[in-house]
Amino acid sequence: MSEGGPKTAVVLLSGGLDSSVTMAMAIDDGYTVHALTIDYGPRHQRELEAARSMARHHGVEPKVARVDLSAFGGSALTDASIGIPSDTPEDDIGDAIPPTYVPGRNTVFLSMALAWAEAMDADAVFIGANSVDYSGYPDCRPEYMDAMQRAVDLGTKRGVEGRPIAIMAPILAWTKADIVRKGIELGVPFDLTWSCYQGRPLACGRCDSCQLRLRGFAEAGAVDPVGYEEVEA
Amino acid sequence: MSEGGPKTAVVLLSGGLDSSVTMAMAIDDGYTVHALTIDYGPRHQRELEAARSMARHHGVEPKVARVDLSAFGGSALTDASIGIPSDTPEDDIGDAIPPTYVPGRNTVFLSMALAWAEAMDADAVFIGANSVDYSGYPDCRPEYMDAMQRAVDLGTKRGVEGRPIAIMAPILAWTKADIVRKGIELGVPFDLTWSCYQGRPLACGRCDSCQLRLRGFAEAGAVDPVGYEEVEA
Repeated sequence: MSEGGPKTAVVLLSGGLDSSVTMAMAIDDGYTVHALTIDYGPRHQRELEAARSMARHHGVEPKVARVDLSAFGGSALTDASIGIPSDTPEDDIGDAIPPTYVPGRNTVFLSMALAWAEAMDADAVFIGANSVDYSGYPDCRPEYMDAMQRAVDLGTKRGVEGRPIAIMAPILAWTKADIVRKGIELGVPFDLTWSCYQGRPLACGRCDSCQLRLRGFAEAGAVDPVGYEEVEA
Repeated sequence: MSEGGPKTAVVLLSGGLDSSVTMAMAIDDGYTVHALTIDYGPRHQRELEAARSMARHHGVEPKVARVDLSAFGGSALTDASIGIPSDTPEDDIGDAIPPTYVPGRNTVFLSMALAWAEAMDADAVFIGANSVDYSGYPDCRPEYMDAMQRAVDLGTKRGVEGRPIAIMAPILAWTKADIVRKGIELGVPFDLTWSCYQGRPLACGRCDSCQLRLRGFAEAGAVDPVGYEEVEA
């Protein structure tokens, strides 16, 4: 479909900062984007609302596909009986696989995006994975992305035809400050994003995700427009 | 969990002949099996019932995870507007990617099985993929399975810890007759399986899947206990 025409891409949009900036980068790069939001049964629906708002900001209605990873267990993000870490000492973030790691998440997400991309003959799949802030997540590592690209090259119709679907992870090696700066450059409405692992009206400011985000804004010399219960910058 | 104890595996069980024989092989190989059936929105529910019956035959209640691949389109098995081929000349089966190919199916299936396997600390994932009868399906090729194994080695907690989850595709290079013979050897109740692409009370006997199955039984010198509208052996 896309031969000679505009490039098309499926963008995995969670509603967080990273995927929102990634979506803006795909658009800036000339892709016609289709947003895919995976509802994997998290503790709260706040992120899904953020994803919808962000997609609509770009004039796109996201496809929300439910994949109930909570049925499998094994993560603090899907299992209410496992505690979400907060006030983690700065040096400890990224040192080991944290309890917020969701087993198989990126593989499931990429495979769903790939399935849709292949069905609509799209050129690429964009994912906002990041190996710097989430160095403890095995499925955020560059070598994992390379292996998935190889599987996609071999396991899809387009791959067999010599027109492989590209896995694009443009912010994989970026710091959070880099991501914030790129978002500012592209006019990403940060107020629509949601990063907190908790589901309360205001972001908690203390969970690993909030801490990384706040540090990123501080390092970029920017102010996070999202409201916090308690800001520790 | 499994260190020193019995080996555990997640078996992808569709309710067809191939996955049913694969499940019996995993049990025969000493694995404690957990059956995962993916309800991907096919045209009929007949296969799901077969999967439930087969799992219960082995004393296991399958986990049924819904992943609506039909929302993405692109296949005769999920899109009612695309015709299912039947009465395909024998030589044409397997020559090209057929309309029954479901984009991204095995990648989605493997990623779901992997997510569950990782959450429960299982040793292996079994899939009844076959590259002989379905040589036109890119995601049934050995090199695709190798690439997925590499992604799993790199993208999971167990892989990082040096205890990778093995992707087991024991019938990948087998003919349908080989599969039937192994099923007979292991006492697989073939009457509980369902292979037909149509959803009628009796198997059609004409779709590619029925034809391959009937030929397999004939070559193995066995009788298929499933009822057919019209048998072309």
